[in-house]
Formats: sequence, C-alpha cells, structure tokens
Amino acid sequence: MHAVRVNGFACKDPMAATPEDFFNAAMLDQPRDTKASKVRSNVTNINVINFPGLNTLGISLARIDYGPLGVNTPHIHPRATELLTVLEGTLYLGFVTSNPNRLFSKIVKKGDVFVFPKAMIHFQMNLAHDKPAAALSSLSSQNPGVISIANAVFGSKPPISDDVLATAFQVEKDLIHWLQSQFWGNTDY
Amino acid sequence: MHAVRVNGFACKDPMAATPEDFFNAAMLDQPRDTKASKVRSNVTNINVINFPGLNTLGISLARIDYGPLGVNTPHIHPRATELLTVLEGTLYLGFVTSNPNRLFSKIVKKGDVFVFPKAMIHFQMNLAHDKPAAALSSLSSQNPGVISIANAVFGSKPPISDDVLATAFQVEKDLIHWLQSQFWGNTDY
Amino acid sequence: MHAVRVNGFACKDPMAATPEDFFNAAMLDQPRDTKASKVRSNVTNINVINFPGLNTLGISLARIDYGPLGVNTPHIHPRATELLTVLEGTLYLGFVTSNPNRLFSKIVKKGDVFVFPKAMIHFQMNLAHDKPAAALSSLSSQNPGVISIANAVFGSKPPISDDVLATAFQVEKDLIHWLQSQFWGNTDY
Amino acid sequence: MHAVRVNGFACKDPMAATPEDFFNAAMLDQPRDTKASKVRSNVTNINVINFPGLNTLGISLARIDYGPLGVNTPHIHPRATELLTVLEGTLYLGFVTSNPNRLFSKIVKKGDVFVFPKAMIHFQMNLAHDKPAAALSSLSSQNPGVISIANAVFGSKPPISDDVLATAFQVEKDLIHWLQSQFWGNTDY
Amino acid sequence: MHAVRVNGFACKDPMAATPEDFFNAAMLDQPRDTKASKVRSNVTNINVINFPGLNTLGISLARIDYGPLGVNTPHIHPRATELLTVLEGTLYLGFVTSNPNRLFSKIVKKGDVFVFPKAMIHFQMNLAHDKPAAALSSLSSQNPGVISIANAVFGSKPPISDDVLATAFQVEKDLIHWLQSQFWGNTDY
Amino acid sequence: MHAVRVNGFACKDPMAATPEDFFNAAMLDQPRDTKASKVRSNVTNINVINFPGLNTLGISLARIDYGPLGVNTPHIHPRATELLTVLEGTLYLGFVTSNPNRLFSKIVKKGDVFVFPKAMIHFQMNLAHDKPAAALSSLSSQNPGVISIANAVFGSKPPISDDVLATAFQVEKDLIHWLQSQFWGNTDY
Repeated sequence: MHAVRVNGFACKDPMAATPEDFFNAAMLDQPRDTKASKVRSNVTNINVINFPGLNTLGISLARIDYGPLGVNTPHIHPRATELLTVLEGTLYLGFVTSNPNRLFSKIVKKGDVFVFPKAMIHFQMNLAHDKPAAALSSLSSQNPGVISIANAVFGSKPPISDDVLATAFQVEKDLIHWLQSQFWGNTDY
Repeated sequence: MHAVRVNGFACKDPMAATPEDFFNAAMLDQPRDTKASKVRSNVTNINVINFPGLNTLGISLARIDYGPLGVNTPHIHPRATELLTVLEGTLYLGFVTSNPNRLFSKIVKKGDVFVFPKAMIHFQMNLAHDKPAAALSSLSSQNPGVISIANAVFGSKPPISDDVLATAFQVEKDLIHWLQSQFWGNTDY
Repeated sequence: MHAVRVNGFACKDPMAATPEDFFNAAMLDQPRDTKASKVRSNVTNINVINFPGLNTLGISLARIDYGPLGVNTPHIHPRATELLTVLEGTLYLGFVTSNPNRLFSKIVKKGDVFVFPKAMIHFQMNLAHDKPAAALSSLSSQNPGVISIANAVFGSKPPISDDVLATAFQVEKDLIHWLQSQFWGNTDY
Repeated sequence: MHAVRVNGFACKDPMAATPEDFFNAAMLDQPRDTKASKVRSNVTNINVINFPGLNTLGISLARIDYGPLGVNTPHIHPRATELLTVLEGTLYLGFVTSNPNRLFSKIVKKGDVFVFPKAMIHFQMNLAHDKPAAALSSLSSQNPGVISIANAVFGSKPPISDDVLATAFQVEKDLIHWLQSQFWGNTDY
Repeated sequence: MHAVRVNGFACKDPMAATPEDFFNAAMLDQPRDTKASKVRSNVTNINVINFPGLNTLGISLARIDYGPLGVNTPHIHPRATELLTVLEGTLYLGFVTSNPNRLFSKIVKKGDVFVFPKAMIHFQMNLAHDKPAAALSSLSSQNPGVISIANAVFGSKPPISDDVLATAFQVEKDLIHWLQSQFWGNTDY
Repeated sequence: MHAVRVNGFACKDPMAATPEDFFNAAMLDQPRDTKASKVRSNVTNINVINFPGLNTLGISLARIDYGPLGVNTPHIHPRATELLTVLEGTLYLGFVTSNPNRLFSKIVKKGDVFVFPKAMIHFQMNLAHDKPAAALSSLSSQNPGVISIANAVFGSKPPISDDVLATAFQVEKDLIHWLQSQFWGNTDY
C-alpha cells in the first residue's frame, strides 16, 4: 500500500499485481484461543489492513470464536453491514435499532444466517456452558471498523469525562470510575 | 409521503410540488425546555420524518439545547456525519474513534465549529453551572438516525440479556439490573 | 493536505490526527461586513478549503450576512444541496427548477428553514431597508463549489464571446458589453 | 413507468421486459429544424423521460442541431457530465468553472470530442455563417435535467423579483424588465 | 416484498419488522448434492431473492459444493465482488482481468481466502479425484446476479445467432451448433 | 496523470488545467480499418486511458467500425452501461441477462439507439454482406474496461486449465485445445 491515504488506501500498479495479492492464508478453519480474553471470545479480522488486495472491493471477513458462555460484546461497525453464518454451536444474538431502540434478537444454530444492518449495535453470545462456538461473518466494506461499546465509552484514551458518563448512565461518579477501571487497554479488533 | 418505502421514502409528483414543500417553520431560533429531561438537554430534529421535502437531498438539521451542566449523552448517527456550530455557551465535546478507541475532545465556545465523523460515538456537555447553551448541527443525511448508547444498551425493548451485559461491562448482574432500571422508555430523538 | 488530488484531497495519517483537525474557530456568531460588497452581502464559507478535517465527510457550512436590501445573488452549488436557517431578519428567497423553469420562492423569517436542491439556481434577499439579516447554511458536500450566475456569465476570465451572450439574452452586443463591464473580478466565495 | 417516484422512477417487472424496452427509434442521424428557434438551435433529448428503459442505467443522449451562427445558450445539467462529439461543422464551445470563474473554451471541428464537467455552465455556437452544424452528446445520468441560464433567470414562472435581478446584474430595473420581456415561455429541453 | 421495483425491491414498514426478517435457516453447514449436475457442482445462494431482509444491505452469501473434479464454471457476478473461503478440500481457482486478459489463478486449501473483483470472469475446480470440496462465498451486493459464460453464450433463450458465435470463437457453424446442443436449460443460480 | 492510483487516477492541480485537458481530437467521424481484424470490426476507445481529462467524470465513448458481416464479439464492460447509436448501416445486436439467461436482441438501423445494461454480455453484427457499418457508443464510466468473452476464456495469459474448460463447455479437451489455438494474443480494446 502507498503512503497516500484517500478515504482508504492507494492502489498498486495493476500490471504489477500477482495472484498472491488476491489471496490470504487466513486459516479461517482453525479455532482461535478464547481463554486469554476476559469476555471469552476472539475475533480474527481479514480486511484491508492485513489483506491489501481487498482495497476498493467493498467486502471483508471475520472469524469469531466463543468459549463457553463467551460473548462478542455489543459493538458497531461504522462502515459495514455484517452477515453472520454460524459455523459451530448455538448463539444468542441481536441488534438494537435507532430511534426507537428496539431489540431484534434470536437464538441461532450451526448453519443459520443472521444479518446486522450497518452501524447498528449488535452482539453474540455462546449459550453453551461446556463447549465452544464459532461464526464466520461477511462485512460489506473492506475496512468496516469496529467500536466496542463498553471499551469506547469506559476505556477510551483519554477517558470521557465522568460528568458526561454519570449523567448519561444516570449513576454516581464512583460507579463510573469503577466501570472505567475494568477497561485498561484498547483491544484492537 | 407515499406508503412505499425504498430505503427511505417515495417522492411526490414534482409538478405538484409547491414552495411549502421546501420550507419548515422550525423555530430554530427558539430555546427549548431542558428541565423535563433527566440529562438536562433537548434535541429538536428537522429531518425527512417531519420535513418530507428533504427526501433524497442528503442533509438535515438538529438544534440542541443544554440546561446548566446538561449533556447530550454518547450516541451515534448510523447514516450521517454531524457538523456542530455553537450558538450559545461553552461546550465540552468529543468523539471516540474505531479501533483503537481514541477520544478526540475539545472545549468549544459560541461561534466555533466541530465535526463528528459518520457513525462515531460522540457527546456534548454544557460546562456552565448557571446558564444554558445551544448548538445547531448539520447532518449529512436526510434521515441520519440516532442511537443513544446508554438507552440502546440498557433500555432497549425487549432488554438485552443480562448475561451479555454483565460480561460486556465486566460487572455483576445486580449492577446491570440497576443500570437497566434507569431507562424506562425510549427517547425518540 | 497532501499535494495529490483525487476528486478532492488526500487524507492525513489517522494516527497523527488531533482534536484540532476536527475543529474550526469559525466565529460563525459574528456578523461580517456587507458594506464593501456591491450587492450588500457577504458569504463566509467553512469547507474543506479552510477546514481540511472535513475531507471525505460530506458536509460544510456557510454564514451569509445581508446588509439592508442585500442580495445573495442567483448562484448554484454544483456538488451540494443547501439547507438554510435564518439567524436574523426576514428574507425573500427561492430557486428555479430545471425544465420547466418554475420558481419556488418564499418569504422566511428568523428560525425558519428552507432547502435548495443540489445544483438548482437559487438566491436570497434581505427585505429590510434598515437592518441587517443573517443565515447559516448547511451544504451536503465538504467541497460544494459555487457558481455566481451573473459573474460566471458576464465576468469570467477570459470572457464568453459576445456573439454567444447576445444570442442567449436576446439583446444587442452593446448591452452585453455594458453588462460585462459591471464585473471586473471574480469574487471567490 | 410506475406512478411511484423514488428519486427517479420505479422499474418494470424484469420478466415482462422485452427488447423494445431497451430500444429507441431516435432518428439521431436526422437533422432537426433550427429555424423556429430564436437562438437558431434545437436539442433532441433521449433520456428516461422518453426512453423509460434507461431508468437506473446512468446514461442518456442529446442531439444538438445548430443553424448558421446558432447557439446552444449557456446552461447547466444539474445531474450529469456531458461529453460532446462534433458530428458536423465547427463549433466554438466552453464552460466556466466554479470559484474562480475561469472560462475553458475551444474551437472544435467534426470528429472532435469535448467534455463539460457536471453542473458547470457551458455553451456551444456554430461559427459558420452559411451552414449548419450538429453534435451528439453523451450525458452521465438517465435524467440529467437542464437549466438554461437566461431563461431560468429572466423567464421563470413566476419571475424572480426585479430587486434581486437588478442587484445581481448591477443594472437598473428597466433593463431587467426589458430582459425579462425577451423570455415568454419555458423551452422544455 | 412490495410489487413496486426500484432497482431492487421496496422495503417493509420498519415498525412491522421482526427478528425473523433478519434470519435465514440456510443450513449452510450441510453439503449439497453435486451428482445431479453435469459439472459436478452445486451453488446455494442466500440473497435478497430468498432472504428479503437483505434488501438495501449490500451483502449476500453462497455455499458452493464440488464433487470430485467438480467445477464452478467460468461466470461473472455483474453487481458484486466475491470473497471465497475454502471450507473443505483443495481448489484450483482464478479470474481473468479486463484488457489485457491476464489470468490470476492459484491452488487454495481449507481455511484460505481468495477474492474475485466485481464483474471479472472467475471459476473454481475441486482438484481431488475422490472427495468433495466446499466453499463459502461472501458477495458485496444483496442481489449480485450471475452470468454463467458457457450457458449465456451457448444456451440463452432465444439463442445468439450462429453467425455471431462462429465469428467470435473462430470456428465453423457446425461446431457452434454442437456447443449449443450441450445447453438445454438455464440453471438459475 | 499522477503515479498514485486510487481506484482510478489522481487529478491534476485544477489551477494548472487548460482547455486542452477537456479536449480530444478523436477523429470519431473517420471510419477505421476493419480488414486487419479476424472478426472484421475495430473499436476505437476514448476513455481515461487516452483522455485523462475524463478522470472522475463518469463517462466515455467508443466508435465501433464493422466491415461486411463484421462482429463486435460477445463481451462485457465490468464498470459501465453502454448506450449505442447507429451511425451507419444495419446491425443485429443483443445482450443476455443474468439468471435466467434470456437474450434481448434486435435489428437496428442508422439513427437508432439501444442500451446494454452494466456488465451484461452483449454483441453487435453488421448484417450487410457488402458494406460497412458504424456505431458510436456512450459508456457510463471514464474507465469502463472490456472483457471479450472468447478471448478471456480461451486466450488468457496464462490459459485457464483445460479441465475447467472441458467441463464448462461439456466437450473433449481436444476441442478446448483447438479453441485455445484460435487466440494467440490479447487484443487490448
């Protein structure tokens, strides 16, 4: 990729392109570890950041692994709709619409498909206490972005003022501080 | 507007259009009451929902009134960038980027302009203890939508499972229940 | 901004961005002088040219000041719809549609909103003989452009041939020359 | 075409489509009369209005005939770039850019191609005193629209206020009235 | 879906939507039969045709099953890029670029990802003589369309003239007739 | 054009632009030789590759010359709709839709117009045994691309595997090899 950025990335000279530019040994068939995660899940993204050949093509992927009771916590993709296919297990999933805030949720199983419209808050959870689950998601942008709600609100660098958050969540500042203390780093996924 | 919906709304016969279709007596110069709001703010939207002539035109407005220490709580517009102009007072405002979750915040005063890129979580707060503030926001969609984070996460109808939320915020379910009890209705703005 | 232009401008490295990139001390609350203008108006643009952080974001602003009987003369924005909010005073405003050329005009007052669809010829005039007026316009492009009709037709550099203009306006060339003599410079707004 | 309008037109059931839907006996090889026109030109449009099969396809055509010294007067297409091919004769043509108002003009002959970028004011004139000229234009929209400057400014229905026009063109109202009297009808092309 | 078509489909009233609208029991984990196919492959599409909730969302899926030496024959998707993930087996796959016609091909295995840019001719083949293969493809349109080259060229209804085809493929008409006789039906996938 | 590529090309500094940048001496009125072509046709493209001023403007042209019984063989433009005007002669032309593969064909004569929707396989043939024909096509992209089906399938560099092609066309490999031998070079048009 070129150092010039134009709402994305500049393209390689097409005559210099090779089949490798359109290929990624993503190992999407391999389960990922979920034990290192506080929320017992692990997201593997395959997008323009690590697969430059997707530039301008308007699509990308993510594999999501869930440990027992693992959660892909509420988040949004600012630039993409997500179409999720269950690879393994049973998931409780849903999204919340914009005004009014209705929840559309469902329990889905292996082979099912569910769609999260662009920029809506959505989540998934593995309902099993004793076995993993996995999903493969298709995203309608080569660079979908992700904003994990809890982390963005309580774990941004620098933090959002506790005045704003105490008012927003209608709680005391002590509780905000305690919530902020749960998030000590940005998980870049 | 026609009953047919096509990613928005159907259009009126252009030969039947009149100047009134392009006009709205929005009274955007008038302060709105902020006392009835738990967060001490009030958002007046002027978009395709109440101004049908904006259909397909890609732009809309919102006036935001803030009481003393009033907060326009963290939210996203899934379909629009927002360009805010301070009409009155001094605001602390900011947005959080997608991966990593950096906060871009600033204190702005009357006459200043600040931009919140599309679908990023953003907020504003009136820093004054004793007087109101106001802003006029331009949005790059006739139907920007709004998702208030606290309300969508803790006040959706039906609610998101406490298992998901307890894991997401890394807290006990009792606290989730208490947070959920703060939100008993969707504020449609 | 980078020297490379791609239907707009190249972007800054996102990791080098700061809150200042999203901020502009536009002083949009301050009236501008209208006395130096032959048409008794003054347009202050806040767009990607002087606010680079708007690049790719699809929105910009303009403050328009009108002296007594001041006119924002007929013009088009080739790349934007304009949504005008009256800040002060009473305006006569309107736009002309494409085939057929119908005028949609209206008298609007403080707090009212009126929309000029993309690339339509439009204008505003302060109806007061003795006091100023002002408006704040939102535009659906970070780089809307402006083509002032009288100036573009009679004041371009170099001028359009008088054969074309005499035929277009159905008048003698002497009159065209006289009209051309009224415009001795491009007002860049 | 369906009576529902959605920023254009609704589509026919694709299974009911026939080859005739994609065909138009436009007789674009036939010269049109230019004598009935005060400006000695005649524009034949082939777009979604008379060729419904172009709906959603993003392209249309116009044949332009010029009598001796005939002019296609300054106008804009609000929704299209125009790429003109000279079929016959020699034309003086050009367009004016937005801020600043530079004229890009040229004399072109049979077989030459010239492009007028979207929504810029442009014109053509047959330079010959004694023979016709013709051009075929491609437009980047199925519904490009056209706003003839002189007609829109001085011949709209109802007319634009003479206060606005006298100020805009820096002339007396008497002259505005005289200019307005030249335009007694909308030429719908 | 509504009977009105507007470059796709009209939308349901959002207040009448339920979680079922965003769900499809696609059984994408289940192998499909490939024995009934002359080319030993089977494509299962999950797009707006059988999953209306994808309307306007810009994404869809396809599961592709390959028998031993099965081929997903050269075809294009006129409205989508395709991002293929190998679920099982080893595939030889590739696409041909537009002018010049370079082939970008590769042998890929389970877990690998390969992208076919929008509207390029592409294909896949199971290299194994004795076992099946499968892939899951993500497509950047809710209605990608498919044009199978051999079928469209030699099996359209009605057929393309043998004069055209004999010239195009530089062969005798007898051979064209024989090729046409291989295709006696449109496979709608 | 700049060496940086961003889904097209970078733009020239607008202040350095001259009228020549918007002009091309394409000689589109001049018949081209069709005798050197095995298929008795010749396509002259006027697009961003040889007319850089079209960059970002969304339109281009092609002149097509046909010798007696000449064929513009089945091909697609991956990024453009094509609107064809017959300049001379009588053509048999058509396109094949995506699933199902219906042929929409027609015989058209001088002055007629026919449209080929984006990325559909289409062709034209001069029906006259003894005289040339010609057409002027407008394309809805400055860089439409072209994929000639026979050449892309049987003449790509390197070739597509004969296993794939024998299965796709339901013939023996010997015939595939013979078809491949007809194409010994990419015609870049």
